[in-house]
Amino acid sequence: MNRVTTSDFEKFLAQNKEMIEASLPVMIERLHSPEVLKEAMMYSLKAGGKRIRPLLLFATLDSFKNCFEIGLPVACAIEMIHTYSLIHDDLPSMDDDDLRRGKPTNHKVFGEANAILAGDGLLTYSFQLISDMDHSEVTPQMKLDLITNLAKAAGPEGMVGGQIADMEGEGKNLSLEELEYIHIHKTGKMLAFSVIAGAILSKARNDQIQKLESFAYHIGLAFQIRDDILDIEGTEENIGKRVGSDQLNEKSTYPSLLTMEGAKDKLTFHIDEAKNILASIELENTDKLLKICDLIATRNH
Amino acid sequence: MNRVTTSDFEKFLAQNKEMIEASLPVMIERLHSPEVLKEAMMYSLKAGGKRIRPLLLFATLDSFKNCFEIGLPVACAIEMIHTYSLIHDDLPSMDDDDLRRGKPTNHKVFGEANAILAGDGLLTYSFQLISDMDHSEVTPQMKLDLITNLAKAAGPEGMVGGQIADMEGEGKNLSLEELEYIHIHKTGKMLAFSVIAGAILSKARNDQIQKLESFAYHIGLAFQIRDDILDIEGTEENIGKRVGSDQLNEKSTYPSLLTMEGAKDKLTFHIDEAKNILASIELENTDKLLKICDLIATRNH
Repeated sequence: MNRVTTSDFEKFLAQNKEMIEASLPVMIERLHSPEVLKEAMMYSLKAGGKRIRPLLLFATLDSFKNCFEIGLPVACAIEMIHTYSLIHDDLPSMDDDDLRRGKPTNHKVFGEANAILAGDGLLTYSFQLISDMDHSEVTPQMKLDLITNLAKAAGPEGMVGGQIADMEGEGKNLSLEELEYIHIHKTGKMLAFSVIAGAILSKARNDQIQKLESFAYHIGLAFQIRDDILDIEGTEENIGKRVGSDQLNEKSTYPSLLTMEGAKDKLTFHIDEAKNILASIELENTDKLLKICDLIATRNH
Repeated sequence: MNRVTTSDFEKFLAQNKEMIEASLPVMIERLHSPEVLKEAMMYSLKAGGKRIRPLLLFATLDSFKNCFEIGLPVACAIEMIHTYSLIHDDLPSMDDDDLRRGKPTNHKVFGEANAILAGDGLLTYSFQLISDMDHSEVTPQMKLDLITNLAKAAGPEGMVGGQIADMEGEGKNLSLEELEYIHIHKTGKMLAFSVIAGAILSKARNDQIQKLESFAYHIGLAFQIRDDILDIEGTEENIGKRVGSDQLNEKSTYPSLLTMEGAKDKLTFHIDEAKNILASIELENTDKLLKICDLIATRNH
């Protein structure tokens, strides 16, 4: 029942980017903090990217016929946590990257110490954005549910745990199970939180939240498989980094573990599962979430 | 009206340390995270220290005749944030310290990447501890007030802002105003949060919370002035680091800006102010908070 037209969806994509990119500077500007800290935080926040997490949040709100406005502070909080994780991941002691999306990484511009603190600041501030939310439909308990879920998704049992596992796995031949552990934690949990947050804000029933979490699990893995495929089949121009870097770094990937054909089958499997689960949830309108599945399956950057 | 005896207060100090040091491992052990992450988090949490922040929290609870138990998750959250800040401050790109309290710093044992992530994990988990609090007297709104205040105290407008300002001030001759900005933000805000948290958990009135915040502001500065004095007059054995390191590093301090006599006068001023403010708040019992003032004024480590 995919009634949204491509151009409707493209409008939604543009609107999502616009909303989030207009709000983030406002959130930073109002801080009473040393200027260099605000500059360092803002530098990476405005570096762009796909804004896929806010997209998932807004699409989930839409699936409950909820307004986008209610989700804006949470969407900003999610982007701040995503951005902090990129700043810390790029540090010399981690991935040691000089460039991200074609621009010098945070520590290259502001120095390592400021980059670490910009990350710390973004992480801490994200919780404040949620606890301070001011919307008549958002109850204190909803905010606490958001905070608990966000801390779990971003913290030692989520993204931070995944990043540790990723570094421990470097240079090793990983099993498929180990590879999935890393992806589910490093990227999957925050993608899932984006969906869960939309459900919490829409007063979803528990069974709906659980199913949406499974849905997000599948699209999270699909997202990662597509990433691995693009690293081989993509063009440098589209993906913005060197093609073949995984192979060069001897990284375990879906194609390296399953062959390219196996990886593509796996991608199709997860997308199909996600769509099946979505169909089983009583939602008002799944158009946008379905379009996101297709976007993830076919994206070329 | 200082009715608590020295031995009562020493029992309270010991009990505080015991409570916090028994609880922290429990909070970490229950995490489903890679072992090395849990080890790195625990290594610095158990490195000890004065546990002055939980002490302030428990003493504030006591001043409202509230039980200690209600504050334990928040006390752990505060120690986690304090510990994360030490781990990140010690990093090579920040203060580059190899030793803390006589033991190798976190990155010396676990490597820089793990140390950064252990800090990130502790920071994130601290918010979860508060949002997950399970106590019949703690309402959702109280938890949100705690989270908002904690994020402000620890984040870009608090501790992180102070650390940035501290680094920017390195090697410069600071004015007293600049020096106080650094101390109020780098250490003062989290000390103040410890007091504010005790007040929130005791359903304090807004005017009481505001006065307790002023009280904490004065003991926070007193704490820092005493630190600067000890760096000159203390013994290496007592303070656990080289005496005279501030002068060696050409750091602006209270004695360097005000002379030693001026610094001691300033210390007395802030302690007196703190005690005066405390006397003006209608509290059940200020014995322990008063003893903490004396402890801060006279500590030799």
